[in-house]
Amino acid sequence: MPTILGQNQYGKAENRVVRITRNGRTHHIKDLNVSVSLSGDLADVHYSGSNTHVLPTDSTKNTVYAFAKEHGIESAEQFGIQLARHFVTSQEPIHRARIRIEEYAWERIELPEGTDGGIGTDEGAGTDEGAGTDGRAAAGGRAGTGGGVADPPRHSFVRTGQETRVSQITFDGESWEVVSGLTDLTVLNSTNSEFWGYTKDRYTTLREAYDRILATEVSARWRYHWSSDAERTPDWDESYARAKEHILRAFAETYSLSLQQTLYQMGSSVIENRGEIDEIRFSLPNKHHFLVDLEPFGLKNDNEVYFAADRPYGLIEATVLRDGAEPRIPADLTRL
Amino acid sequence: MPTILGQNQYGKAENRVVRITRNGRTHHIKDLNVSVSLSGDLADVHYSGSNTHVLPTDSTKNTVYAFAKEHGIESAEQFGIQLARHFVTSQEPIHRARIRIEEYAWERIELPEGTDGGIGTDEGAGTDEGAGTDGRAAAGGRAGTGGGVADPPRHSFVRTGQETRVSQITFDGESWEVVSGLTDLTVLNSTNSEFWGYTKDRYTTLREAYDRILATEVSARWRYHWSSDAERTPDWDESYARAKEHILRAFAETYSLSLQQTLYQMGSSVIENRGEIDEIRFSLPNKHHFLVDLEPFGLKNDNEVYFAADRPYGLIEATVLRDGAEPRIPADLTRL
Amino acid sequence: MPTILGQNQYGKAENRVVRITRNGRTHHIKDLNVSVSLSGDLADVHYSGSNTHVLPTDSTKNTVYAFAKEHGIESAEQFGIQLARHFVTSQEPIHRARIRIEEYAWERIELPEGTDGGIGTDEGAGTDEGAGTDGRAAAGGRAGTGGGVADPPRHSFVRTGQETRVSQITFDGESWEVVSGLTDLTVLNSTNSEFWGYTKDRYTTLREAYDRILATEVSARWRYHWSSDAERTPDWDESYARAKEHILRAFAETYSLSLQQTLYQMGSSVIENRGEIDEIRFSLPNKHHFLVDLEPFGLKNDNEVYFAADRPYGLIEATVLRDGAEPRIPADLTRL
Amino acid sequence: MPTILGQNQYGKAENRVVRITRNGRTHHIKDLNVSVSLSGDLADVHYSGSNTHVLPTDSTKNTVYAFAKEHGIESAEQFGIQLARHFVTSQEPIHRARIRIEEYAWERIELPEGTDGGIGTDEGAGTDEGAGTDGRAAAGGRAGTGGGVADPPRHSFVRTGQETRVSQITFDGESWEVVSGLTDLTVLNSTNSEFWGYTKDRYTTLREAYDRILATEVSARWRYHWSSDAERTPDWDESYARAKEHILRAFAETYSLSLQQTLYQMGSSVIENRGEIDEIRFSLPNKHHFLVDLEPFGLKNDNEVYFAADRPYGLIEATVLRDGAEPRIPADLTRL
Repeated sequence: MPTILGQNQYGKAENRVVRITRNGRTHHIKDLNVSVSLSGDLADVHYSGSNTHVLPTDSTKNTVYAFAKEHGIESAEQFGIQLARHFVTSQEPIHRARIRIEEYAWERIELPEGTDGGIGTDEGAGTDEGAGTDGRAAAGGRAGTGGGVADPPRHSFVRTGQETRVSQITFDGESWEVVSGLTDLTVLNSTNSEFWGYTKDRYTTLREAYDRILATEVSARWRYHWSSDAERTPDWDESYARAKEHILRAFAETYSLSLQQTLYQMGSSVIENRGEIDEIRFSLPNKHHFLVDLEPFGLKNDNEVYFAADRPYGLIEATVLRDGAEPRIPADLTRL
Repeated sequence: MPTILGQNQYGKAENRVVRITRNGRTHHIKDLNVSVSLSGDLADVHYSGSNTHVLPTDSTKNTVYAFAKEHGIESAEQFGIQLARHFVTSQEPIHRARIRIEEYAWERIELPEGTDGGIGTDEGAGTDEGAGTDGRAAAGGRAGTGGGVADPPRHSFVRTGQETRVSQITFDGESWEVVSGLTDLTVLNSTNSEFWGYTKDRYTTLREAYDRILATEVSARWRYHWSSDAERTPDWDESYARAKEHILRAFAETYSLSLQQTLYQMGSSVIENRGEIDEIRFSLPNKHHFLVDLEPFGLKNDNEVYFAADRPYGLIEATVLRDGAEPRIPADLTRL
Repeated sequence: MPTILGQNQYGKAENRVVRITRNGRTHHIKDLNVSVSLSGDLADVHYSGSNTHVLPTDSTKNTVYAFAKEHGIESAEQFGIQLARHFVTSQEPIHRARIRIEEYAWERIELPEGTDGGIGTDEGAGTDEGAGTDGRAAAGGRAGTGGGVADPPRHSFVRTGQETRVSQITFDGESWEVVSGLTDLTVLNSTNSEFWGYTKDRYTTLREAYDRILATEVSARWRYHWSSDAERTPDWDESYARAKEHILRAFAETYSLSLQQTLYQMGSSVIENRGEIDEIRFSLPNKHHFLVDLEPFGLKNDNEVYFAADRPYGLIEATVLRDGAEPRIPADLTRL
Repeated sequence: MPTILGQNQYGKAENRVVRITRNGRTHHIKDLNVSVSLSGDLADVHYSGSNTHVLPTDSTKNTVYAFAKEHGIESAEQFGIQLARHFVTSQEPIHRARIRIEEYAWERIELPEGTDGGIGTDEGAGTDEGAGTDGRAAAGGRAGTGGGVADPPRHSFVRTGQETRVSQITFDGESWEVVSGLTDLTVLNSTNSEFWGYTKDRYTTLREAYDRILATEVSARWRYHWSSDAERTPDWDESYARAKEHILRAFAETYSLSLQQTLYQMGSSVIENRGEIDEIRFSLPNKHHFLVDLEPFGLKNDNEVYFAADRPYGLIEATVLRDGAEPRIPADLTRL
């Protein structure tokens, strides 16, 4: 046969699971988008359509929801590890599982005491009528929880959009690979960025810049050293928080002569300070902010007014590694 | 002629203007997306293509950038008022200007003192070489600003994505209409929401719910009472902040028997507490979180595991008005 | 009470329904996205949360699917009329129903006879094994339908993306309003477009153009004259096809001095030729194609190389009416 | 130094170039989105910010536009080859160039002769007035080109959205790699698809299907055998057209027992019939169409009414190779 099957994988993508944990009146929320991808002894289903070795993608979806109940969701990484282990160890034909997770952040709605009269001026007029039917909702309308209540409910959340946390957990039955990261973290320095001294060829018209805006939408993926059940896992949430902090700090504190330099500072800061991380890769679009030429209008633009451009954009991508570590994050970062 | 021209308008949409204000080493940023729409004595350009009365959309774009320099951007509303007034008063054929503005929020990158060794363990190796060319960047690499610096630079920002602030300013040469609002404010209550007692017809299969998740992505537009140059304008930024706070508070504090009830509580809270606002309209998609049936797996789902659905979704829309106010916000909220 | 409820509506949005009709081995497909919005005697649910008058949005969703079976889908407009009539006539508190429909187009996969050896060179190796389990799929793998089969199956479709057809049907128990249209129809003329003779103000820097590209993404909505059950309905599909054809023809054949002029030609062509249509509104972004300045590279750009810009863009909007018709399409076109 | 730089690349992404070629009154259009990515001796710019080896991304953008003039755009692949060769051979520090191109398809607006009176009933009323200003546009309004004109203008286009053609050209100074493909080709079979005989575990609830809709949005990438300037290049456009045809044909003609089987048939059909292609990879989301349960409404759904679901979705990915060929397309297909 002249054609053969190469690398293949399958599973259910984008299972949106929300897990609520109730600790008395204080609730906690985890909001994930989980994608399962399995590979193994699956040639037959491609060649002949025989599904003998195929666990339906629908079952992998059900597993995500059942595991959210059975094991809870401590962190995206921990949840992914449980899922990956399950598929590889429970399904003989499955030799490798890759779990990708996006996590959406929520923060509690915490409001100051009413200031402009507060809702205390609203006496709940008209909100009680609907409740009488069966007494279930005698409180109808807004709860009468004033500021002095000892144990106010804490079950209200607002989604924060600063960045999306991502993770990919891969297990082949023996060793683990965990790559975590973030996307859509948009940052801007309004000064301390220059760009000059570059190569000039026939097609170069760009003028050198000695004080420009530097802005980017950080997409980063870092690979953990942890790869064996024999080792202790990192504290995934703490590690995420600190890696993000190092990235922000290096962005803010680097006096930049090029976005590549800023990238390297962000990466080396993570590698140097977080021993549990061996490798990090960034994809940094240069979100150009062009100084608008106001001279035709008799105005001088003293680094005040910029046009924020969409396309095209410079795209800077690189990996920073711990010396001796093997580079394994692929050149193209994908969303999940 | 059997056909005639009806309502028409034109202008440059989505001018992305970023304004940096430097107060010593402390910078401030305003990031807007401004759309200009003009109407007036413009029949000829439609009937014959004569551009005699047409100020090019390119000129309206230039005006946005020039005004950002000449007048600064105090608030989106104030900036829109200046633009609208300019077009109507300076262009004889233009009788009405409508300025729409989206505002993207940035917050300062504020980092705790280094904890895991900080970047102080990074001695800036290799970051100085690039600077020698002309001495402009002798500091090359990260700035040597330790924690003890008296006046650290404050020019680093991270974009926050909680919601997008929007505004629409309309001027016809005499009176003003300002409609402001927000989009994409995603909120969730993990309890205190019921839905029962509804009409049941031949096509009703829904089961009543006595403890469900209530989540929505708030899109709100409120119209200010202010309409004349003779009156004092509201404090736009303060008004925005307080309106948003009332919306969040009412969402969190309402024990909800229907999303309509929650909507009305949010709206009436704004109208009752903010005298400068006459009317508010909401478009609230019911972001369904369905309790997953785990019984087939021998598990009980005690309001713990939910499937967050995309489509279809309930869509609840309504206006809440100050008694006596004229409803003028259109039924369909548009993005800008 | 100082606040009152204004215009309100609710329903299930974006019900994705696909209807297959089998005519022997020839299948037909209708693919719609249906949004239901109901209004009427619904104050109570807002004021108190009483759902007594509320038919759940879930029931409106079920109705869409049940009606696809019971009545079929002859056209989006006809389907919407059936739904709107149902809600208003069967639910006493519902006084008005608005149905919005997006329709996605599919065309049959029609392939030429195999040319480069065809798949006939593939002998279906290995495709039969999977079928044996219960004999249901003895044909396993590709069907052995050679070119000479008398009645080849016709059940394969490819989605065409040229434009999306939209419709909005509103019924208040007495009269009807049907507004149909299209979105995302992207068209371009590479010549026969000029722009000059415009107003020049202090902020004008644009140079006049005597041969430019004119490109836009047509969004159009037209309102039918039909409003009463006493009149015969138009042939909705024929009317749609012809209106689109008139728009394309007028775009192609107009020598344009401004996008406004082209808009008016498109609109008047529809109104003059289609007696069933009283009013049409367009929203036309001017998709700028800027001539790239190649002089710095010693090259002359003789209207050959363009930069296709994203933002900002000119936005031209206008209504064209049959003389005497009342303008009722709102200024802001919304997607559905 | 404990950290080192790994794989890195940079360039200008998403340069939108439109090239018009005029052959008398008949125009031709090429519409591309070109992304340049360069790598080589670029450690210094990361470590120190020295831009000595950095050709600005702005220059790479200019090169795209200049080359569109100097060389024309015969095909996306040919254009990418010229660009890649240029960067590697003209810039000593650049050792590898990767050019990614998306191509948007346009077709000519070809209209039937006017049927419902045509625009001939429109006497161009009012369209001439605007032209008088300087005589440049004496034809003002629609061109008077009736059906009988010998040489009608052919400069009007409508964008087709069936799929987007993509290509990636990589050159390291010696050998070439060309990977082409398509995205967003949405196809559907309304019958001849089954799914049964699969593994059932504790979490399996799916019922077997003996006649289901099979729909997917094909994303495919194929790698050409061509890798050396010593060999003749394929006819890129012909190869693309035929590969797409084989994919469509195999989709339509395969009686499918699983989407994996359909994938393999599509891939092997391309490999077997197109000798110039060595490898092809697919990413196929299973666009689920669920049969709606109409029994609660007393209706039988005889494979007629489906709910088209968005998320989650099955995702099937695999490579099909010519025996002996080396697999080089990465597991994750990226957009460009």
